[in-house]
Amino acid sequence: MITPRSADIHAAWLPSEAFRAIGSRRVLVSGPGTGVETVLREVGQACAQHGGSVRRHSPPLVAERSSEGADSASYDLVLALATDRALPVETAARADLRRHQGEGTDTLGEEGFALVRHGDVTIVLADQPAGLLYGLFHVVRLGESAFGPAHPIEVHRPAMRLRIANHWDNIDVHPVMGQVERGYAGGSLFWRDGALRHDLTRVGDYARLLAACGINAITVNNVNVHVTEAHLLTTRLGDVAAIADLVRPYGIRVHLSVNFASPVTLGGMPTADPLEEDVRAWWTETTRRVYETIPDFGGYVVKADSEGQPGPFAYGRSHADGANLLAEALAPFGGVVHWRAFVYNHRQDWRDRSTDRARAAYDHFAPLDGQFRDNVILQVKHGPMDFQTREPVSPVIAAMPGTRLAVEFQATQEYTGQQRHVCYLGPWWSELLHFAPWGVGRDTVADVAAHGSASGAVSAGPGGGLVVVSNVGDDPFWTGHPLAQANLYAFGRLAWSPELDPVAVLDEWIDLTFVPSATTDPDLLRRTLHEVMDDSWQTYERYTAPLGVGFMVRPGHHYGPDVDGYEYTPWGTYHFADRDGVGVDRTRGSGTGFTGQYPSPWSDRYESPRDCPDELLLFFHHVPYGHLLQSGSTVIQHIYDTHFAGAEQVVQTRRRWERVAGLVDPAVHARVTERLDEQVRSAQEWRDQVNTYFFRKSGVPDAHGRRIH
Amino acid sequence: MITPRSADIHAAWLPSEAFRAIGSRRVLVSGPGTGVETVLREVGQACAQHGGSVRRHSPPLVAERSSEGADSASYDLVLALATDRALPVETAARADLRRHQGEGTDTLGEEGFALVRHGDVTIVLADQPAGLLYGLFHVVRLGESAFGPAHPIEVHRPAMRLRIANHWDNIDVHPVMGQVERGYAGGSLFWRDGALRHDLTRVGDYARLLAACGINAITVNNVNVHVTEAHLLTTRLGDVAAIADLVRPYGIRVHLSVNFASPVTLGGMPTADPLEEDVRAWWTETTRRVYETIPDFGGYVVKADSEGQPGPFAYGRSHADGANLLAEALAPFGGVVHWRAFVYNHRQDWRDRSTDRARAAYDHFAPLDGQFRDNVILQVKHGPMDFQTREPVSPVIAAMPGTRLAVEFQATQEYTGQQRHVCYLGPWWSELLHFAPWGVGRDTVADVAAHGSASGAVSAGPGGGLVVVSNVGDDPFWTGHPLAQANLYAFGRLAWSPELDPVAVLDEWIDLTFVPSATTDPDLLRRTLHEVMDDSWQTYERYTAPLGVGFMVRPGHHYGPDVDGYEYTPWGTYHFADRDGVGVDRTRGSGTGFTGQYPSPWSDRYESPRDCPDELLLFFHHVPYGHLLQSGSTVIQHIYDTHFAGAEQVVQTRRRWERVAGLVDPAVHARVTERLDEQVRSAQEWRDQVNTYFFRKSGVPDAHGRRIH
Repeated sequence: MITPRSADIHAAWLPSEAFRAIGSRRVLVSGPGTGVETVLREVGQACAQHGGSVRRHSPPLVAERSSEGADSASYDLVLALATDRALPVETAARADLRRHQGEGTDTLGEEGFALVRHGDVTIVLADQPAGLLYGLFHVVRLGESAFGPAHPIEVHRPAMRLRIANHWDNIDVHPVMGQVERGYAGGSLFWRDGALRHDLTRVGDYARLLAACGINAITVNNVNVHVTEAHLLTTRLGDVAAIADLVRPYGIRVHLSVNFASPVTLGGMPTADPLEEDVRAWWTETTRRVYETIPDFGGYVVKADSEGQPGPFAYGRSHADGANLLAEALAPFGGVVHWRAFVYNHRQDWRDRSTDRARAAYDHFAPLDGQFRDNVILQVKHGPMDFQTREPVSPVIAAMPGTRLAVEFQATQEYTGQQRHVCYLGPWWSELLHFAPWGVGRDTVADVAAHGSASGAVSAGPGGGLVVVSNVGDDPFWTGHPLAQANLYAFGRLAWSPELDPVAVLDEWIDLTFVPSATTDPDLLRRTLHEVMDDSWQTYERYTAPLGVGFMVRPGHHYGPDVDGYEYTPWGTYHFADRDGVGVDRTRGSGTGFTGQYPSPWSDRYESPRDCPDELLLFFHHVPYGHLLQSGSTVIQHIYDTHFAGAEQVVQTRRRWERVAGLVDPAVHARVTERLDEQVRSAQEWRDQVNTYFFRKSGVPDAHGRRIH
Repeated sequence: MITPRSADIHAAWLPSEAFRAIGSRRVLVSGPGTGVETVLREVGQACAQHGGSVRRHSPPLVAERSSEGADSASYDLVLALATDRALPVETAARADLRRHQGEGTDTLGEEGFALVRHGDVTIVLADQPAGLLYGLFHVVRLGESAFGPAHPIEVHRPAMRLRIANHWDNIDVHPVMGQVERGYAGGSLFWRDGALRHDLTRVGDYARLLAACGINAITVNNVNVHVTEAHLLTTRLGDVAAIADLVRPYGIRVHLSVNFASPVTLGGMPTADPLEEDVRAWWTETTRRVYETIPDFGGYVVKADSEGQPGPFAYGRSHADGANLLAEALAPFGGVVHWRAFVYNHRQDWRDRSTDRARAAYDHFAPLDGQFRDNVILQVKHGPMDFQTREPVSPVIAAMPGTRLAVEFQATQEYTGQQRHVCYLGPWWSELLHFAPWGVGRDTVADVAAHGSASGAVSAGPGGGLVVVSNVGDDPFWTGHPLAQANLYAFGRLAWSPELDPVAVLDEWIDLTFVPSATTDPDLLRRTLHEVMDDSWQTYERYTAPLGVGFMVRPGHHYGPDVDGYEYTPWGTYHFADRDGVGVDRTRGSGTGFTGQYPSPWSDRYESPRDCPDELLLFFHHVPYGHLLQSGSTVIQHIYDTHFAGAEQVVQTRRRWERVAGLVDPAVHARVTERLDEQVRSAQEWRDQVNTYFFRKSGVPDAHGRRIH
């Protein structure tokens, strides 16, 4: 059954109203066995709410077959899973599809679907149950337009096979990091105070939301695997199975973050050395038990030798040795290991300007290319640092043609306002996915994630997909800031289809989430939400760390400005501002040589302070405050201008939000208003601290004479 | 009985060896009733360990009287409490004393004592039991020299009536501040995980240590009084009584930190308004019950309207109204209220240069002078900020002739190395106590604390005494860093006798604590400890925040350098460094006007950047980096020189400590060595961060070409 939602929990992008077009029609769901049950339930609930009707056609029933023709004609929507006894209307639709696509391309695959308008009937075709479910949610998105007379044939297959949400959730409340590490939306959906939550209703609801945006896997625990959480692999495996049971109906598999030292900590063995036979046997047997309990288990995620987590270095082994150990255990069952490339020295000496954290992932992993088993996926953060508001694409993505790579994004807004600031990340992710490491016209980051890449030429192999760190918790609005829901939604949509325009994706989200409830002026609401959200990431960038230099946040919690906060720490995150200039020299010519990790043309563009894109200038170069940007402004004046502008834009946003007070759920409006108040305050604090800091250092007055403290 | 000490607990300044001179002799303790029992037990234990003998003479026993003369002759040491039936030797000693002092001055008072050598006998005379106990510990300090033939007559009376150690201990472990707020010596001696400790043995041991250095009162809970701790006043009063029973034998009274809102939170009343009759009645009745349970209870300590604690401001009442409310309730029982003057705006705007936290205590309290009841003691931190390594004396101390003032020091090393750095604070406190607010030759800070002062002329009234925030916890060495014990010892000694030379006090402490166990080369040990400790406060000052500007510590935990850490915060603690200069303009001429809070001559000396003492220059003035100090150095070169020198001195300290490896308890040596390693690291971090910060800002190279990063 469809789990009931509490009235206090926000429906996100699946409010009842979004199902009106479907639920008010006559629907036939066709397909054998249990595969279509989720679709049937979704449609059934929609019809119960909106007055339509649903019938199931289960092909093996001969009695049904005799009345097929008549039946078809009396439906508005047919959702048909491929079978050898297709309905006539389905057969006709498949013929339409073949004509549309040409012969030989009519396999829709495990998750694909087609939408065909045949006569007065809209038909969703799929080869597999997951495809039918995605087709259903596509019709939800289309609403009435799915039933227009001239609707063109659509075929959809996901670009990425794996579209995963990682949860950094702890079972035990961590004394420093809390229940959810870097979580800004309350507690965990899964865990509470040391145990699986008693009421898991929202896990089912969450699975619906994920399926409706296209995400097909989750991890249920933090990549920093502490003692209690390590036991999910063994004694607490039943908890994982319980979650898997709840998300499976929505085509979602569960993966698990595991601790590399598990053979020692859980198995009582003297070593976790990946080349030890006993260690391999332990992982083999442990993994076999996992699949015995959860046959569709997805695989493991590992953060090894990073920020204190154990790993193969302790035994003098490589990360390929470590990853292959787990991959070998998973292979017989079709599981994968996501091995994180986030390995760097977090006890760096700030005095040492030659060590460069940006170099670390490439230096560690590029030499290992070709050594990983084919069910190892190297999970690479999109940038070389750590989810900053602006950083270049990680050079690792272009450096490992013989390795499956997944690219990791962060929906939880650790460095982008912590769900107290509006920051729609779709445009940032889209820009990253479209980045072409080997130059325009060649493969993009999305291509590499989708199907691997050898030096820019599209390869046919399987890619590693996209990963997002979830921004969801047990908050009534799921994401703390109601508008932050759009980030999770956009991730799913971009992972399915990276070429989508992020503003169009936002429009989808607005139409699903808000418009159905805005009875008086939906256009004003839509326009306002676009004004508030479309450029919000760039607005955030304007009032925070300038020109790609990054960080400048308060150490520890990472919220709010602290220009020198990380300047003298061991974390490798510096800006080197002095009275003359600012920025990190990462050139080959005079700096850390990081630019050399990129292929041409970027290795040269980044190397040159003239050619380097303005927005990344201080990431790659240390320049004088008077350095002239391509924009025509000096660095120092750019800092002043963007910070005044960014803070002012937030004030405008706050004002715009007032206009829609009567158009959205009052609880949503109040929550957003409260967050905007904080954003206004915080943006002004950023503006004043950053401007004051650089004015005190540079002594250069603002060209427009504005107040700097 | 004397509580047994665990072998694992360090004896501090009362090791068994320190009692050899007494314990190996024939001792007579004379005095009526239970008053002398503690002395008797101490001597008895010493004799049991060192082969001497003790006898008690209890005057009312007629049988004893007949053999008095003979008895006296057979003792080496007589500890005699005044009685109307004195022993002959005691009578003779009193006569010696009168001759020595002149007639009419022979009252020793509640805590005073005299030491007289008469013939072959050393006699300690006291009027009250506490005096006899202090006399005993004085003989412990003197050791063999107390029995030398020509020992001069000594008379000792404490300069301060109240010599209090405040414990910032919580009953519940506070989620941020822990069991002991700003504690660096493990847990609390009193509380553990939400309750009174089961084993309170160490509380008795602690009381001995306090009495042996002269402290006569303690508070047992944090001045930030949280919910559980508030109940010590009522439902948990039994816990306080239990502690009082353990410390009473050592002449120590217990005081309690109370929450001003107690009538609301504990009494269930609608208000805590100090002018409400019901509120007064509640405090009267509650206080009556306290004295019913603990007849010698000392009084209350209150932190009101400060850093989030409730206070009279909520009801539109003054701090005099608030303090007098509690004083009135305490007066019938002889209790006092310590009302803290640490009131300031901790939500300041860093952009606002006119608000000055340094002004706050004076601005709040000086206008109230004369309005406090005479059992109110205004407890004033020694400086206007917050226990920095260097700050001027608080102007409040010279501003309230009609108010009893206690001066608060901090032994727990919140800002002075957190008991990981050696920092002997005796010289700093001594300097503060000798400071003459009205100019040389007039009253000092010590005078004000001892007996009040009207504009510099000694008054005969009772002063408020000295308070120290304790540095003690359940650490085996009591204070984390074994050498930090000296700070508590020195506080007690200086509170008793502010004119003592802090280096001589350190020598006392060394002789008691270390020398008895150094069988091979006590001179090397003593010399080394002096080299390590004598100048350690100034060494610490050299490598931390320069020229009195303060802070520059990591926000939150306050350890380690963070030059800009507090620069853009609401705490009112700024240095305003820019590319041209640094410091806070607190002059009347162009700054916050803080200098005007001092009487002449300091109001003028501080006002002038030429006359202001170098070490406080940046506290009072914003000056260019090239400003010439009285020392002849520029500000910037002074910063470089002191930071290089300070860090180098720590390296030398570390080396010197090696020399005494065989001369002290190996556990002590190991603990100090481990802390020195950290101090070396931390001092270099301070050096490099501060130097780099100011080099990057000023652009001025080091005159000696040393490495700045």
